[in-house]
Amino acid sequence: MTNALVELKAHLGEVADLSAAAAVLEWDQLTYMPRGGAEARAQASATLAGLTHEKLISQRTGDLLEAAAGETSTSDSDSDEARLVRVTRREYDRQRRVPTSWVGEFTRVSSIATTTWEKAKPASDFALFRPHLERIVAMRREYVEFFAPYDSIYDPLLDGFEPGMKTAEVTAVFSVLRPALVDLVHKIAERAGAVDDRCLQGDFDEARQWDFGVQVLKRIGYDFDRGRQDRSAHPFTTSFSPDDVRITTRFHRDLVASALMSTVHEGGHALYEQGIAPALARSPLANGASHGMHESQSRMWENLIGRSRSFWKVFYPQFQRTFGEFAKVPLETFYRALNKVTPSLIRVEADEVTYNLHIMLRFELELALLQGDLAVKDLPGVWNQKMNDYLGVLPPDDAQGVLQDVHWSGGSMGYFPTYSLGNVISVQLLNTALAQSPSLASDLDRGEYGSLLGWLRENIHRHGAKFESPELLRRITGEALTPQPYIQYLKTKFGEIYGF
Amino acid sequence: MTNALVELKAHLGEVADLSAAAAVLEWDQLTYMPRGGAEARAQASATLAGLTHEKLISQRTGDLLEAAAGETSTSDSDSDEARLVRVTRREYDRQRRVPTSWVGEFTRVSSIATTTWEKAKPASDFALFRPHLERIVAMRREYVEFFAPYDSIYDPLLDGFEPGMKTAEVTAVFSVLRPALVDLVHKIAERAGAVDDRCLQGDFDEARQWDFGVQVLKRIGYDFDRGRQDRSAHPFTTSFSPDDVRITTRFHRDLVASALMSTVHEGGHALYEQGIAPALARSPLANGASHGMHESQSRMWENLIGRSRSFWKVFYPQFQRTFGEFAKVPLETFYRALNKVTPSLIRVEADEVTYNLHIMLRFELELALLQGDLAVKDLPGVWNQKMNDYLGVLPPDDAQGVLQDVHWSGGSMGYFPTYSLGNVISVQLLNTALAQSPSLASDLDRGEYGSLLGWLRENIHRHGAKFESPELLRRITGEALTPQPYIQYLKTKFGEIYGF
Repeated sequence: MTNALVELKAHLGEVADLSAAAAVLEWDQLTYMPRGGAEARAQASATLAGLTHEKLISQRTGDLLEAAAGETSTSDSDSDEARLVRVTRREYDRQRRVPTSWVGEFTRVSSIATTTWEKAKPASDFALFRPHLERIVAMRREYVEFFAPYDSIYDPLLDGFEPGMKTAEVTAVFSVLRPALVDLVHKIAERAGAVDDRCLQGDFDEARQWDFGVQVLKRIGYDFDRGRQDRSAHPFTTSFSPDDVRITTRFHRDLVASALMSTVHEGGHALYEQGIAPALARSPLANGASHGMHESQSRMWENLIGRSRSFWKVFYPQFQRTFGEFAKVPLETFYRALNKVTPSLIRVEADEVTYNLHIMLRFELELALLQGDLAVKDLPGVWNQKMNDYLGVLPPDDAQGVLQDVHWSGGSMGYFPTYSLGNVISVQLLNTALAQSPSLASDLDRGEYGSLLGWLRENIHRHGAKFESPELLRRITGEALTPQPYIQYLKTKFGEIYGF
Repeated sequence: MTNALVELKAHLGEVADLSAAAAVLEWDQLTYMPRGGAEARAQASATLAGLTHEKLISQRTGDLLEAAAGETSTSDSDSDEARLVRVTRREYDRQRRVPTSWVGEFTRVSSIATTTWEKAKPASDFALFRPHLERIVAMRREYVEFFAPYDSIYDPLLDGFEPGMKTAEVTAVFSVLRPALVDLVHKIAERAGAVDDRCLQGDFDEARQWDFGVQVLKRIGYDFDRGRQDRSAHPFTTSFSPDDVRITTRFHRDLVASALMSTVHEGGHALYEQGIAPALARSPLANGASHGMHESQSRMWENLIGRSRSFWKVFYPQFQRTFGEFAKVPLETFYRALNKVTPSLIRVEADEVTYNLHIMLRFELELALLQGDLAVKDLPGVWNQKMNDYLGVLPPDDAQGVLQDVHWSGGSMGYFPTYSLGNVISVQLLNTALAQSPSLASDLDRGEYGSLLGWLRENIHRHGAKFESPELLRRITGEALTPQPYIQYLKTKFGEIYGF
């Protein structure tokens, strides 16, 4: 490597170290921190975020980028080095628009907001959370103006999760997806009695749920020597390096599949992060390509694999041994129950079909909040009304309504659409994998997940953030993002289950 | 407050934030980090330590200190502000002697060394740990030279733990303590059969040990809303702010009192940190006065309180209910067992009399390593020989010998003497408290620890690091550090138990 590249990597290594430290602080905040620690933690996180930002947007980064760009201009444009310069330059230009003081303050505000949300949610106390959310929305409205002019006020936020993607593209995808989903929901509603999911309800020991989840994680390839699982109010995955990638879960004693499917979801994220090439560690490339690509991995393992018949053919005997309640429940009954489609209140518990409607609702609300068309004080009412309109269910309280997700409290606006993009991408990817690897389907039938993981590592994980999501998708599938395969997947799967 | 003071406090607040972040990283490393995370953690910790150092020794600190010193020159010399300037100036001058690059590298080296020690200790594999310790000793020898000229090569290290104290003073205290202890050990050895501690050995459920320890912690005043307890290979206390002070413990199933007394010890440290005045938070004053003063708190709660007859009069009935094995063991038998004096291998398990001999051994070895009189490769042999000379016991392996303590792996050389200084101070303090508060003795007899804690908070804890340890001790007791009260305490207590 040339001198400027060596220096650039060392410099960016320090930025990555600070980001990793911030991630440890956040992980601790969400898992083990005693309540008294909140204020000092908000301060520490704010200072760390400010210093990280300052270092990233420093003149030194600019100088090293320029020198390194000159040195890599003749090299392979797909090399780690050329891509490092390109990705860093993009992030550098983006972050330089934001004042460091804003970053520090926003980190402090959202840290306190998260702690408050953790209290407000179980108490269903929106009034407690409201001033914090108001501040977050106000600051996000400041944030987007750093990027003016923009096509959509949502673009600068989306860009933080889906580099290069425009809100118009999301709207276009959703405009195809929505009628197809509504049609499916209607078809299924007419046959609602065809699936009975009462077997999933009961009283299920948490330690057994934990143990079964851990066994599934190991089977799909999650490496506990380079990660761990803990509990938190809202499940998440975080990475301090490809060798320390952690997930969290939480339990519902009354729903046997809830923690498990959440664990598999986070496991999918974690496999991505654990699979990033060691050579990319401590650099801006040691991330996923985008949040949509990340969700494609979590949603693939959770749904395409974890809710498939073949998955449960493998795991059901062990599941029955763990939970004696299922001794006399046939596999087919369990499989159908696990895939029952019902309009419901909680996004993370939603079935594959209605799930995306939860996302569209949040996307619309975020847009309205940013545009100033909706005030935070009116949010719970509008939330409930939209839930009623889209899904025909009315949240009995805010805990099961507007307070259910952690995202806004942490300052994440613009994230939600990536879940649906992930759903869409997941089917494009799995279809390609199945087409390219003739033995993959039978491997999955046998519970051999190594070949799927190998394909994902080779085609996606190891590249980290070298390629932006659209480019990566095109390299792998030859196609742009398109919702048709996903719609077809849903029609086939649920047509079979519901008989249409 | 004046302008410079406001700015100085904000600036030092950021330094404190970075130190807190580093402490979170270290806590995580020692409690939950998966083994794969070690290398990235060492890097992140090193970067954080370097930035913290850079910020502390920056010209800006110097300028603000100067301006603030001018502004506080006419104010009360005991005010928080005047003391902040004084303590920060001392630390600034000290840290400026050390290159930031050394700080980063030493942090990286000791982080990896700690991880390696955690593997080497259970395997009793000194060869694995040796190169890491060699590097640490070599770097500590570099470190002391930043402070040349010095009276003793040990002074610059001791000064990091006991601000302003000289090695000659430690030697003087030890020279009084040693013959008194040796004399006591001999007297007790002649009556060794007088105490039987077999009741403490058995097989004791860890969950019960945990629960009983937590109850004791609550009774002595540890606030779990502003702290928590976890497990680690070596127990420790860490503080991220006075509102987030955490302790760790570990269990020996075969020794009922081991985890408990360790828990009370760390609880004593934690009470100190939780008691620091909120006004001192996020500043260099939000620390203990010295490590010796800190150990005076932990050793006071562990020994003067936790191994006293009155303590167990209060807790023994509950202890007997928790551990049925003691149903027929009289309180007096238990009390005597808990205080049995026996030369033994492990410092943290040692009785109050022989404990200090473990410390003196380590102090001598550290001095020899620094002076170059002892090579790391010869350390296990010399350790074992000294154990045999001083205590008449020979470690069967290095796990029970030179590998038993975490300190050297973390780079801490110069720390060990503070345990004995703490023992000495603890008796001076408790004698003063008893003299000043006529009801204290009866409160302790009744298991009312609030009045002792209140006295400690008022006289010690709330001041944080405002006063250096010798000054604080003199303010409270009117005396300098002197080993006589401690020796008298030991003679009285163990004379009564052993009948001489």
